[in-house]
Amino acid sequence: MKVSVYRKAHFNAAHRLHVADWSDEKNKSVFGKCNMPNYHGHNYVMEVKLTGDIDPQTGYVMDLGILKSIMEAEVIERYDHRNLNLDVPDFKNLNPTVENIAVTIFNRLREKIDEQLALGLRLYETERNFVDIEE
Amino acid sequence: MKVSVYRKAHFNAAHRLHVADWSDEKNKSVFGKCNMPNYHGHNYVMEVKLTGDIDPQTGYVMDLGILKSIMEAEVIERYDHRNLNLDVPDFKNLNPTVENIAVTIFNRLREKIDEQLALGLRLYETERNFVDIEE
Amino acid sequence: MKVSVYRKAHFNAAHRLHVADWSDEKNKSVFGKCNMPNYHGHNYVMEVKLTGDIDPQTGYVMDLGILKSIMEAEVIERYDHRNLNLDVPDFKNLNPTVENIAVTIFNRLREKIDEQLALGLRLYETERNFVDIEE
Amino acid sequence: MKVSVYRKAHFNAAHRLHVADWSDEKNKSVFGKCNMPNYHGHNYVMEVKLTGDIDPQTGYVMDLGILKSIMEAEVIERYDHRNLNLDVPDFKNLNPTVENIAVTIFNRLREKIDEQLALGLRLYETERNFVDIEE
Amino acid sequence: MKVSVYRKAHFNAAHRLHVADWSDEKNKSVFGKCNMPNYHGHNYVMEVKLTGDIDPQTGYVMDLGILKSIMEAEVIERYDHRNLNLDVPDFKNLNPTVENIAVTIFNRLREKIDEQLALGLRLYETERNFVDIEE
Amino acid sequence: MKVSVYRKAHFNAAHRLHVADWSDEKNKSVFGKCNMPNYHGHNYVMEVKLTGDIDPQTGYVMDLGILKSIMEAEVIERYDHRNLNLDVPDFKNLNPTVENIAVTIFNRLREKIDEQLALGLRLYETERNFVDIEE
Repeated sequence: MKVSVYRKAHFNAAHRLHVADWSDEKNKSVFGKCNMPNYHGHNYVMEVKLTGDIDPQTGYVMDLGILKSIMEAEVIERYDHRNLNLDVPDFKNLNPTVENIAVTIFNRLREKIDEQLALGLRLYETERNFVDIEE
Repeated sequence: MKVSVYRKAHFNAAHRLHVADWSDEKNKSVFGKCNMPNYHGHNYVMEVKLTGDIDPQTGYVMDLGILKSIMEAEVIERYDHRNLNLDVPDFKNLNPTVENIAVTIFNRLREKIDEQLALGLRLYETERNFVDIEE
Repeated sequence: MKVSVYRKAHFNAAHRLHVADWSDEKNKSVFGKCNMPNYHGHNYVMEVKLTGDIDPQTGYVMDLGILKSIMEAEVIERYDHRNLNLDVPDFKNLNPTVENIAVTIFNRLREKIDEQLALGLRLYETERNFVDIEE
Repeated sequence: MKVSVYRKAHFNAAHRLHVADWSDEKNKSVFGKCNMPNYHGHNYVMEVKLTGDIDPQTGYVMDLGILKSIMEAEVIERYDHRNLNLDVPDFKNLNPTVENIAVTIFNRLREKIDEQLALGLRLYETERNFVDIEE
Repeated sequence: MKVSVYRKAHFNAAHRLHVADWSDEKNKSVFGKCNMPNYHGHNYVMEVKLTGDIDPQTGYVMDLGILKSIMEAEVIERYDHRNLNLDVPDFKNLNPTVENIAVTIFNRLREKIDEQLALGLRLYETERNFVDIEE
Repeated sequence: MKVSVYRKAHFNAAHRLHVADWSDEKNKSVFGKCNMPNYHGHNYVMEVKLTGDIDPQTGYVMDLGILKSIMEAEVIERYDHRNLNLDVPDFKNLNPTVENIAVTIFNRLREKIDEQLALGLRLYETERNFVDIEE
């Protein structure tokens, strides 16, 4: 039996999709309105998933209060109310698509979460567009 | 690391559950109110899931704008505001349960989506009843 | 201070928008895909609102369990898993727009609810289209 | 009996709260992280409410397809995927708080909607923060 | 034009419906399973609504960050993770129906909110049962 | 192709997190406000997932009406409007964390569901904290 626990959080950020090596025409043609020069933004919602054994004493896979603190320190403090392209070094050379943002968050969390726990991540850019990462 | 992108769409349709080979009594006994003769309907919500590699240049698994167009051409244009039993040839000889509708949509989309991408599908008939398909 | 209590329920039904006195061309031009001949359908969600005084003993404006029974007898039993145009006499001569369905439900409930309580009704046809009635 | 119809739409935009006449210190002290210099953003959701009589022939208060087109032309086309402070003249001299954005949308729609219909507007900046306007 | 701003918060609490002056039989007959002796519980969601003028400088009806602090101090700190019947003096002699909880929260907030602002409150006991208060 | 069907239900219950073998200090330090002595509560939402073949005649993986009855008999009847610690023997010696409640529900359902069908379960304690079980 495989047990996973989930914890949700959110951050609000501005971004634009843009590849520095490409011409403006190519950027506009590939990314459309997501390439608008002065940025737009989203209410991002992230769900972190941890899979592992239930501790027989506490009944926890992991204390979700501790997970919440890690999510705040690693992600919310860095991304919330920021411009991902301009303010967040993670995206200095990386196009902030929802896929790339998710991988970046995944890697940040992976370093802080016990290796015994498998990590998964869902990131919503809108209610209609979202991404899952599993290892 | 396995990355999946999702895109959501919806269509509104009428249907009834009915097996042509069975008597009216058997149909009524198996399908209950879902067998009512003059049809009822639902706001169907579909979530398409594509699993694959992130393109290192665009940062996309797939351009969700293109996926949206495929979903509209293959599913919404055919099913939206239709009677699935009467208007949609897919269900001429197939009982339109949420399972069968999902398999049919899955097969339609599978033909149009790059074979490198694994396809998944979730279809909600109501908020309480839904189906997932994975390959 | 004005206190209102709310109770939610849902029903799934088929319908089409069609005015019998009009030509097919006019119906199609005014109602578009909602006029499709073989019906489509929705997961309707209704919220009933009752405004009145809190009973000082029970602490209730009205027992929501009793309200639930009235909603089931008056609305769900008649409309759920039905074709509104064909199966429900209320719409024999009335176009089942979300506005008209809401007024009809309102009138049915008004007869069964204590006159001391003001009645309101919200009816969702989809998450994006809905109607409120206040008296 | 008062009948209102509602239609929902959404747009994604960047903004920051900032009063040009104030010092940077005062802006930061009043608006906190909402004043961050490089903008952040939101998935805005708007619900338009029209109150009026049901047309006895069509059964509509207003054709919501026409309302949808007005909302797209007046709001979505101007605000979606924009930076409200930099790209939208409406906010050249007006701080884009959710209150001010809502009033501005209300005024734009009021000019295009039949005067017989009372107009209302709800605007969500996030699921937790939102605004209503009634006339 | 009337402008209202809203802020949402939540608390998780146990309660039972019980009138001390009544016999156990009467309590059981009136309140049914809500009268179960050892309590049950809910994820309560509250939406506070403030109606007033937009400050021409800030663009705020009220700073929602300040409102959030008032809601936390007056409601969340007192009710969250509590047994309303046993731990909260407000309900020592008052049956904690959703109506009575809402009135009590309303009165607590009314004392702390500027009199120039009209106060409203919505309290969800479940997604299906909720209450509104307007003054 | 793997097909899964889902059915949702809910129950409202009180609980507290507490390990009988530990001191009060340790309980308070590990479980914080979830250890409050007089209980708090939640609106629990459960989603049952069954994976198997579609019956070629009915078009069902399983009749969700039958699944609904099993969920009601095995879970809702036992847990709804109960105090999990005091009223439910399942948790007499088991700390009712969302993980442990989910495992207990999973085991109850596993006994009643056809062995040909793989069982999964999601249990929401709040919208922000939830658990998945897969076999």
